[in-house]
Amino acid sequence: MAISRRLFLHRVGAAGGSGAAFAAMRVMGLAGVAAAAAGPALGADAGRGRSVAILGGGIAGLVCAYELERAGFKVTLLEARDRLGGRNWTLRNGSKVEMVGEATQTVAFSEGLYMNAGPARIPSHHDGLLSYCRKLGVPLEVEINSSRSAYLLAEGSGGGKPVQMRQGVNDTRGHISELLAKAIRKGALDEELTAEDREKLLPFLRFYGDLDADMAFKGTERSGLLQVPGAADQFAMPRPPLPLRDLLANPQLPAILFEDNINMQATMFQPVGGMDRVVDGFERAIESPIVRNAEIVQIRARDGGVAVAWKDRASGAKNTLTADYAVITIPLALLAKLDTNFDTPVKRAIAAVPNDYSNKIGFDAPRFWERQQIYGGISFVGGETNLVWYPSNDLGAERGMLLACYGSGPPAEAFARRTLAEQAAIARGVVGRLHPGHEASLEKPVVVNWSKVPFNMGPWPRWPGSRGGQEGHFESPEYMLLNQPHGRVHFAGAHLSQTPGWQEGAIFSAQRAIAALTAQVREHALAAA
Amino acid sequence: MAISRRLFLHRVGAAGGSGAAFAAMRVMGLAGVAAAAAGPALGADAGRGRSVAILGGGIAGLVCAYELERAGFKVTLLEARDRLGGRNWTLRNGSKVEMVGEATQTVAFSEGLYMNAGPARIPSHHDGLLSYCRKLGVPLEVEINSSRSAYLLAEGSGGGKPVQMRQGVNDTRGHISELLAKAIRKGALDEELTAEDREKLLPFLRFYGDLDADMAFKGTERSGLLQVPGAADQFAMPRPPLPLRDLLANPQLPAILFEDNINMQATMFQPVGGMDRVVDGFERAIESPIVRNAEIVQIRARDGGVAVAWKDRASGAKNTLTADYAVITIPLALLAKLDTNFDTPVKRAIAAVPNDYSNKIGFDAPRFWERQQIYGGISFVGGETNLVWYPSNDLGAERGMLLACYGSGPPAEAFARRTLAEQAAIARGVVGRLHPGHEASLEKPVVVNWSKVPFNMGPWPRWPGSRGGQEGHFESPEYMLLNQPHGRVHFAGAHLSQTPGWQEGAIFSAQRAIAALTAQVREHALAAA
Repeated sequence: MAISRRLFLHRVGAAGGSGAAFAAMRVMGLAGVAAAAAGPALGADAGRGRSVAILGGGIAGLVCAYELERAGFKVTLLEARDRLGGRNWTLRNGSKVEMVGEATQTVAFSEGLYMNAGPARIPSHHDGLLSYCRKLGVPLEVEINSSRSAYLLAEGSGGGKPVQMRQGVNDTRGHISELLAKAIRKGALDEELTAEDREKLLPFLRFYGDLDADMAFKGTERSGLLQVPGAADQFAMPRPPLPLRDLLANPQLPAILFEDNINMQATMFQPVGGMDRVVDGFERAIESPIVRNAEIVQIRARDGGVAVAWKDRASGAKNTLTADYAVITIPLALLAKLDTNFDTPVKRAIAAVPNDYSNKIGFDAPRFWERQQIYGGISFVGGETNLVWYPSNDLGAERGMLLACYGSGPPAEAFARRTLAEQAAIARGVVGRLHPGHEASLEKPVVVNWSKVPFNMGPWPRWPGSRGGQEGHFESPEYMLLNQPHGRVHFAGAHLSQTPGWQEGAIFSAQRAIAALTAQVREHALAAA
Repeated sequence: MAISRRLFLHRVGAAGGSGAAFAAMRVMGLAGVAAAAAGPALGADAGRGRSVAILGGGIAGLVCAYELERAGFKVTLLEARDRLGGRNWTLRNGSKVEMVGEATQTVAFSEGLYMNAGPARIPSHHDGLLSYCRKLGVPLEVEINSSRSAYLLAEGSGGGKPVQMRQGVNDTRGHISELLAKAIRKGALDEELTAEDREKLLPFLRFYGDLDADMAFKGTERSGLLQVPGAADQFAMPRPPLPLRDLLANPQLPAILFEDNINMQATMFQPVGGMDRVVDGFERAIESPIVRNAEIVQIRARDGGVAVAWKDRASGAKNTLTADYAVITIPLALLAKLDTNFDTPVKRAIAAVPNDYSNKIGFDAPRFWERQQIYGGISFVGGETNLVWYPSNDLGAERGMLLACYGSGPPAEAFARRTLAEQAAIARGVVGRLHPGHEASLEKPVVVNWSKVPFNMGPWPRWPGSRGGQEGHFESPEYMLLNQPHGRVHFAGAHLSQTPGWQEGAIFSAQRAIAALTAQVREHALAAA
């Protein structure tokens, strides 16, 4: 189902890693990882006398500019937009959303509200990004990625009424524990389990599922209370359990596993005030020239370096930049359209990679969900809008930005074909089915279809041979080829990492390109000596 | 990284319903509960011309003083300590911890560190307390109650090495899913499940446990990665799964269910700066006289009112307070020792309720755990110290207060018999086994044994017939008797609620006593007319 394709990583093949040393050190949960991820250790004169052109000012380009100027390179960064950050894009009151084939939207959010149109959360094991946040002084706060009070919308299922996350999680576990206990007591698993195993597993299952003395699941307080425990004789009254059949009929039930997706596990973070605070941090730190509105029109890779022709989108003036080396972070589907002199296999590889689709819709709304004890977290709704994501920032404020759609893959492709008004109306309708009576309070919709955003035209690639949006793509020869330098041209970006949907992927890829580029500089120096 | 404190800026919730009514309305996850829980709606002249003595300035006493003065009563609150709050007690640099039979500890924490010796978290369905935080302007922040990077200490089990929470949660689910799938495919559950049920359950189990195509559990990325997905061919490498036998041998395995305890489920909160900010809020709002250092020595219930004799602990001077009504929130084990003229059944009930035991130990430490990707959350260690609780406040700061013990019940009773130095040494040792090499960095231990704290002498009662510390105690006639008014004397406190370990219980009990007292006032007025 779409939700599992987008939200859950599938296991990838266990091949040996040959990333830069500091990257290979990134093992989860070991002491020192955060320190180890602080970045590549380059001598301050590793790049003395060498120039680098960086094409594209997203996270990968910014990391390259930041690290290479510190390594002594003469860095120039060309960015086609009038803003940096790429997909790291935060919308606030007054922001303009320009999309190909759509009227420009001007965001009219209340003061203090913002929408992260691209990345919106940071897992606590993304040491690369967390280390840059530390270095760049970007304040973080907890991103509440899971609330037991959020819902699984039961559309398409028998249920009808939304199922609260705590019911989905705990009633499902109760039924599964009861069934397994029954099978064990029937002796059905005597081959798989020794008598001692069974003696230990049965009492654990009783606790795991909150079963009664007869090992039957009759409901659990974990799933919520019809009456909370109060004073005197106001005893707690647990909800009656949902039948397993109803739970399994709920197309959103798999979302009870969302919080255990390795990239979604507590503790999660977000920058205070919006994800683009990360971009601001890089901008403060980078001293090299950054040219905005610089649209690349031609790239010529030569033996001695790289020549880049670009157009000033404001004045239309044509310019050329030459450098000893280049890092190209332009999305492949756009790079394929440029005039380059890359070898045919490289051109073919670039042209062979289409973009995926992803949409987000945000509303300015009063925080009715907090009156329903939902503080942050996500309700899963399926369909074209996929989820309703409640804000983690400024809990208790009067109004908040309610993200009423974040979908990717084929459902998002179909959804993006609708008019913006239709998309907003569908998202509003889903919120109404989830929170009856509140749909009318949703104001100022902002629709972002990444497939229509100039200079991205998609959120991440669909690699040939990959199984979809955000998975690893180990079956793709194109991916492997483009992860190699092409002469003095190095390709980088989250799209060349194993996590194309995450800023951490952009950082890994940038740091890998930096390692390859500086190695190349050393070789050229030796050759010249 | 600097992680900011987000203020929780609620407006005053609308009050509604009588004590009983709004309490009964507190159904989890229904619209409007937060507003409904704002407090009892009493006429501003409900208590005109009537006086109330409130004995004890914990949360129950503070709620009574706050609500009854707003209802027009002449309120006097007597508190035996020089501070208000009772078990709501936050320790900071310079705080004195006096315990019977122990040398006084003076807290020497670094600036900004604090330890909530009593309650330390607020569930998002505790609408009573959340509503008072709103009304009283107490800023809240997220309390991170669960981190997938925290540990289950494997002591006593075969394992040895601590098991990360993500392994305990996801490897256990993987094995259970595989076993149930096997039993179903063997036909062992054909009586319990229809063919259609089985057709739906099997694919769900494959996803639930992250099983392979043969429905075998071979490990899952959800349990963590030996190598994170990086650039190029740095593929994700999941950890090998822990054998079910090792998981079941880990005495801490049941703690994987902790986060689904109805009172522990995300989203959880804590006041910014310490739990006693709630007490400060009541203190700001209450205008009636609050007498500190007022130790109660005698209580006389009479037909026309109540006479309370108390001693000024500072001067030793004896005083008497008479009032039309009294609310007594003194812990029962202490009340039993006072000179009262209560009827014999009431005295017997009071005397029949011993206290439970609970201990907390805090250290001032550098945040080594955050270098291990643990940001908040709890590691479960069993034994006498039970857990290691990581701070949710000021993430990314240099130092933090590490709570290295929070235990209750029989193990806590035994632990409290040890010297404070022994207790701290044991807690330090456990942290060392959990985080090898870091035990020496723990400084300035503070040990709180609630069974030795004057004017509490225990955290909560062990009701006769109850199954232990924090459970409901509906088998206890003493509990039911003391939940009835005794003439013009009303008993209140978390100990007279279904949640004696929670501030919400104190609020429920106080609001119930307020409702009973004001009903009594109306009856007396009618009788006098």
